[in-house]
Order: sequence, then C-alpha cells, then structure tokens
Amino acid sequence: MATHTDRLRELLGDRVVTDPAVAAGFAVDAWPQAVAPDTDGFTVVRARSREDVVTTLRYAAAHRVPVVPQGARTSTTGAAGALAGGIVLSTAAMRSLVVDPVERTAVVGPGVINADLKAVAAEHDLLYPPDPASSDSCTIGGNVATNAGGLCCVKYGVTADYVRGLEVVLPGGEVVRTGRRTAKGVAGYDLTGLVVGSEGTLGVVTEAVLRLVPLGDPALTVLAVFPTLAATMSGVGALRELRHTPSLLEMLDGPSVDAVQAYGDYGFPTGSGGVLLVQSDRPGSAAADVQEYAAALTAAGAADVAVAEDRLESDLLLEGRRVLNPALQARGPRFIEDVCVPVGRLGELVEQVHAIAARRGLEATCGGHAGDGNLHPCFFYDDTDAASLAAATAAFDDLVRAAWALGGTLTGEHGVGQQKVRWLAEELGPDEVVRQRALKALFDPLGIMNPGRGIA
Amino acid sequence: MATHTDRLRELLGDRVVTDPAVAAGFAVDAWPQAVAPDTDGFTVVRARSREDVVTTLRYAAAHRVPVVPQGARTSTTGAAGALAGGIVLSTAAMRSLVVDPVERTAVVGPGVINADLKAVAAEHDLLYPPDPASSDSCTIGGNVATNAGGLCCVKYGVTADYVRGLEVVLPGGEVVRTGRRTAKGVAGYDLTGLVVGSEGTLGVVTEAVLRLVPLGDPALTVLAVFPTLAATMSGVGALRELRHTPSLLEMLDGPSVDAVQAYGDYGFPTGSGGVLLVQSDRPGSAAADVQEYAAALTAAGAADVAVAEDRLESDLLLEGRRVLNPALQARGPRFIEDVCVPVGRLGELVEQVHAIAARRGLEATCGGHAGDGNLHPCFFYDDTDAASLAAATAAFDDLVRAAWALGGTLTGEHGVGQQKVRWLAEELGPDEVVRQRALKALFDPLGIMNPGRGIA
Repeated sequence: MATHTDRLRELLGDRVVTDPAVAAGFAVDAWPQAVAPDTDGFTVVRARSREDVVTTLRYAAAHRVPVVPQGARTSTTGAAGALAGGIVLSTAAMRSLVVDPVERTAVVGPGVINADLKAVAAEHDLLYPPDPASSDSCTIGGNVATNAGGLCCVKYGVTADYVRGLEVVLPGGEVVRTGRRTAKGVAGYDLTGLVVGSEGTLGVVTEAVLRLVPLGDPALTVLAVFPTLAATMSGVGALRELRHTPSLLEMLDGPSVDAVQAYGDYGFPTGSGGVLLVQSDRPGSAAADVQEYAAALTAAGAADVAVAEDRLESDLLLEGRRVLNPALQARGPRFIEDVCVPVGRLGELVEQVHAIAARRGLEATCGGHAGDGNLHPCFFYDDTDAASLAAATAAFDDLVRAAWALGGTLTGEHGVGQQKVRWLAEELGPDEVVRQRALKALFDPLGIMNPGRGIA
Repeated sequence: MATHTDRLRELLGDRVVTDPAVAAGFAVDAWPQAVAPDTDGFTVVRARSREDVVTTLRYAAAHRVPVVPQGARTSTTGAAGALAGGIVLSTAAMRSLVVDPVERTAVVGPGVINADLKAVAAEHDLLYPPDPASSDSCTIGGNVATNAGGLCCVKYGVTADYVRGLEVVLPGGEVVRTGRRTAKGVAGYDLTGLVVGSEGTLGVVTEAVLRLVPLGDPALTVLAVFPTLAATMSGVGALRELRHTPSLLEMLDGPSVDAVQAYGDYGFPTGSGGVLLVQSDRPGSAAADVQEYAAALTAAGAADVAVAEDRLESDLLLEGRRVLNPALQARGPRFIEDVCVPVGRLGELVEQVHAIAARRGLEATCGGHAGDGNLHPCFFYDDTDAASLAAATAAFDDLVRAAWALGGTLTGEHGVGQQKVRWLAEELGPDEVVRQRALKALFDPLGIMNPGRGIA
C-alpha cells in the first residue's frame, strides 16, 4: 500500500495523506460494527477538484485498486469505511456552492455540508428540504450516494426528489453529466436516478444540481407524550387523517426518550410510553396547524400535549431528536435497523420490535420517521458475550423479515452498505441481482468502485 | 405481416385486430408529420392483461419483430405510430385503478386515462398532479413513457416526481418490478427513473405505483392581457418574484390566442400581444394569491387583468388553453417545438421564436409553460411548397440551437420520438450516445423495442 501512497503522492502531491495518524481518521464510518483496516493498509486522497478525482480514478483503474468514495463518514452501514489495499477518495474538501435564486437551484460540490446548503439557501428565502438527523455534519455527496431522507420526508420527500442532474467521474476517469439544469428535460435516458442511492458503486459524484423550494414559515413544534407505545401509534394514525401534512413527524418510544435525556437534558419527559414530535411550516397557517395537531393528538390518547412556547424550546426538542443516534451509541453496542413499511402497517412493525427483543432476550429502542413508515429500531447486546451478539444478529434478521412480511423493505434511507449486502439478494430476487450486476459492470467493468458494498 | 397477425391470433385470440379499418386507427399518433404504414404492413394487439403483453413480447423476440407500445396516440413526436413490419402493442384497455388513501398511492394499469385517475383521486381528497394538455385522453402509460409534464409543473413537477415504482415487461417476456411501494426505499439500484421517459425503448409498462398528494383548494384563475409579447414576459418575471408559486402559469402569444378563438369562443380577447393564465390552489389562500398575482401583473404592464368570476368562466379559459394544440392543428401544417430553457432565459427564447420566423419568412405561434421555461412554439408551412417546408425545417433547427445556446434542451416533455432523433446525439454528445446504446442493449439486446424512436 505504501507503493500506492507513494505513487499517488507523485501525481497528487499534498492531496495524498502520508501521516498514519491523519489517515486513521478516514478508516471507518459510523457503522457500529465497522472494523478499521491497518492504516498502512490503505491510501487516503483528499480531492480538492474534479481533476483530482479523475487522476485518482485513472490510477485506480490502471492498477486495479479498489476505491471508496467518502464524505463525512456518517454512514451507519459501513458504506464509506476504508478497504484494506484500497484508496479512500474523500470529496469532503470539494465545497463549491452557488445558489441561483431565479432558477431556484443550487450547484454544489459533494463536500458541501447539508446544513451549510440550507443556511445559504435560506438567505434567498429558499429551502433545500432533505434533512438527515446528521445534517450538521453529513455531506451532499453522501446524501446523494444513499438517497438520504431524514426528518422532512413526510412532507418533502427524499434526496432523489431534489436532484436535477449530476456530474459523475466514472471508473477510469471519464467525466459524465446526467439529468438536466432546466426545470424539465427528457432528451435521452436519465441516469440521475440510477446514480442517486448507488452508494459509490458506479462512480464519484463531483457536482450536483439541486432543486430548491420556497422556504416555509419558521416551523412550530408540538410535543405529545403518550402512556403507551400503542397509544403513540394511534397518534400517528390520527395525524394521517388531517388534510395538512406535518412538515415533520418523528416518533420516539420510551427507551429512546430515556436514552436522549441520559445524554443531555433536551426537555423530554422520561418514563413515558412514547412521544411524538410534530411540526408545521405552512406559510401563514403553522399556528393553526399545530393547534389542530394538538387537538387530534389529545383525542388519540396523549397524556400531555404541548406546543413549544418559543424558538429556543422548539430547537432544543429537535436537537434532542437529532442526538438520538449518538445517545444510543453512548448506551452501548447495538445493531441499527432502517426498515420501512407502508405507513398503514407501521403500528404492526412497532409491535414487532419489542416482541422480537423480548423473544430474543434483548433490550431495544424504537424511533424514527413515523410519517413515512421508516424506523430505526436498535437491538442492544453485550459485545463480550457471544450468545448476546448472536441473539441481536437474529433479532436484526427477524425484523427485516417482519418488514418484508408487511410489504416493506430492509432499508428506507441508510442504504445497504456493507451491513445489509447479505439480505439484499433476498429482497431483490435472483433475476434482479443478475440485472443489477450487469448494470454495475456497464459503469465499472473492473469492479473496483466500493466493492462489497451496496449491491449483492 | 399477415403471417404475424395469423400466428398472434392463435396465441391471443380476439386481442389481435384483424379488421384493416380498425387497425388503421392505430397507425399514427398526433405527430403532424406522421406517415401511416399500410394497414396490412403491421399487426395490432390490444392487450388486456400483463399476460397478453408477456405473450406478445415473447413472440416478438422469437421472431425478431419490432414492437411499438401504444397508449392513446397523443404523442406529438412520432413515438407511438406503427412501424411497417411490426406489432403495435396497445395497452389502452389495461385500466385497473386502485387508490389507497392511507398510503396516498394509486396502483394503475397503463391504459388509465390521466383525467380518470385525477377524478378517482379527488374522491379521496387527493391529487395526481401531472397534467398534460391532453389529460382528457392521454394514458398513464404514455405519460410514464415520455415523463410527461403539462400545466402543473411550475408548482408540482413532472411525472417522474410521482412514480414510486413500475411493473415492466422486458423484451422476451421477463416481468420485472422497479422502485418501491413504500414512501422510502433504497435497496439496490432504482431503475424506475431509467424507464420513465424511455419512450417504450426498454420494455412495456404494465403497472405503475403513483404517489398522490393532498388536493389543493379549487383553483382560482387570473387572465392577464398584455399589449406586447415583451410585456407578457415581464409579467412572467414579476410572478417569479413572489413567494407563493402559482399552481399554473401558462403563456399564449397573440397568434396563439387568435387561433384558439378561431377554433371556438373560449373567452379570450383577440389581437393582443400575449396573455398569461395564472392559477393558485393554495389551501385557504387562493383568493389572496390571485389578488397578489393580479397586482403584480398590472404593475408589470398588463393592459387588462381579470380574476375569473366563477368556476365556469375559469374552466372555459383553461379549456381554451387545452385546445391550443388542436386549434393550431386546424390552422395548418406545422412543426411543434418543445424547447426548454432556464426560466431566467425564457424571454430571450421567446424573442428568438418570432425573429427566426421572420428571418425564414414563416408564420409562428409561441405558447406554453412559462413557469418552467418549457414552450411549444410552432412554425407553419405550406405543404404544397417545398421551399416553405424547407424554411420551416430550418426554423425548427434554428430554435433548437437557440435553446441549446441558452443552456436548454430540445425537449422538455414531449420526448424525442421519431421527430428529434437526428438532434439527440448532438445534445448528448458521442460518448453519452455510446453509453445509452449499451444501456438499451442490456434490456433489449435484439433492438426490437420501438426502434428508431427515443434514442440516437
């Protein structure tokens, strides 16, 4: 590997990391089960431009070296960790960002942080909706690679809904543009949707043309506390009956809330059956909406319903939801699920989570995007106890199968990564796997783009 | 061809048309330059089920017969006309339609008429937004094949924004499912976006899972009349400055309005420089919006601004916009453009239309979807005069090049069809053409799906 580092250093100078302590910071992503390769086992390139990406991919093809495109390493599935013998190609430094208020677009480099794009768009009264919980740190390149969703999806959809076009460097170094810069355009096949969500297995995104929408009003927040998890799900159902879709509808069960409050005081009540966080940002009508939500949640059985009094209180609650992942990480070793089912089947999925945990003798949490049927339950285990790990592994599998039985999928937004490859073929079926492999081979005939991740 | 008709009749019985007078009705689409093959030169299959489609595509692959998937023949580009020696596979009779109000989805057969889906969705207070001018007759299968847009796009986007997943029969008869039924899902590559807009060149869509949104308020309509075309475009610019995007923003230049009124009295004033039709359907705020639009349009130089007094008047104006295409057809032979440019460059594109017409000695009309930069200018010619035809051909080419120079595309929503294949390679570039051909070959190795259409 030292050879690749030395040779790439000749081509790319200080873009190539030579300090092992620095390289170590690029070894793993946020997948709890990630294992770091030795730091002398991979090379890190910190690209600053499309040309750096081209040079790296040319080199990789010539020497048949695996390449892992990497953003902010917030992947929870092992999609972005270093591979032994490979190159980590970080695009985190590619942060060009141009908002065009007339076209309502942003043309951005892959390293732009999601929250930074939102902030610049807001200066033009525009919104970039996709909103992973990690928005303060995750990059647009990573968001595109996983087709990230987050807290906005119930009203605003996912990343794919906002990507008009991409610039992608293919293995071997060819630069291609997909999609369009205009509001509409149908000339030729649109490869954009193929690249979005492809987890770095087809090429490296070096620019994205993103659609922006008019900024809503500042969101108002309702916090509803329920005595039981079943009552919490009744609250979700009650909101679905209303005409005006919330701009955010997040659910945390009791153990999730307790983990958040153990991590810091974010204003949540502990010891409940579950809570719902609900927002409206509807221009001119947010105040009316949250009153309507509050009434519906009370009627559905909430023990306590409160509209956040001010911006600070509202931000604190949202911050509490956003730290759920680190709070659960602090709680101990766990598997993170990302199952998604039809919204009408969500209550059944939630019932399964704790039933599976009880059957397998595990502790579990259940929270996530109640508005769109996508949850992130966790099964905790003792990593010094092989039987506990085996039980958690089995519980993960149980829940995937439960989601399938409910008409759902094993991954709503986190992606397949390295974690879920062994389930993917079962979800897609053998014929589809053959077709998808052929598609990948069309772009990556040498099979060097993020091998072992994203595709079965 | 009689052989294919006879053999398919053995396999498919009365699904196969044997009466030449009936078959003649399937020969051409709405492309003004379409030329019908002899009716004994092609076979028509009227599929009623997925199995009929599978049987037809199996037969076609075995005998290497070209297949043209066909809906309601509203294509303006020759994408859906019969090919000599081929099979026309009509899916117009596949009209299953199930709306799920909890999931806010519709699962539909390809023959469902766009307006019928809208009507059924409205019974559940839901909306299927994509809205081609031909919504009363065009099918969802055709809408998916072209990624159709229409009158809604300024606020609601295009067909691709509403397709969650598809069932597609590939050449040879394999049935595949793309995308998802859940609100989110990222397992494997998503082929949905590749099939949407592929103009029947990859397979035959036999079912679509469509996303519905909450129905807005009944739209209120503003009609603004301008003394000049330039002033009309100022009106478009003024609306772009407002926070609340209209749900419809259509432009007709003077000659377009005159053609509509010559076709029937739809309540438009003749002899103007241009008119804008603007709507809001924003819940609870449509009345306020149209007053704001009216004020902005007056300030921008409108000679007359009127808010439609009632539903009847409003519907009549919209009906006038919808009959623009048949009204222009009645006016005489013409080429229909579908150029789309960044919205900030629309004024320049509009200037070009009549400048090109004047330079080429032709009459022209210019109208379309001003809110999203997509226009359908027409160049009229005398089909008994070769010089006139040549001038119109040259004018079409001039306008395509003008759109490219403005950062636009030759087709915003009508598709490439047969009409625009000769420009496509220039828009995409030679490397992209090679890649797109390879993609097609992955699905259609025999090259029998709608050959000569959609792809260069």
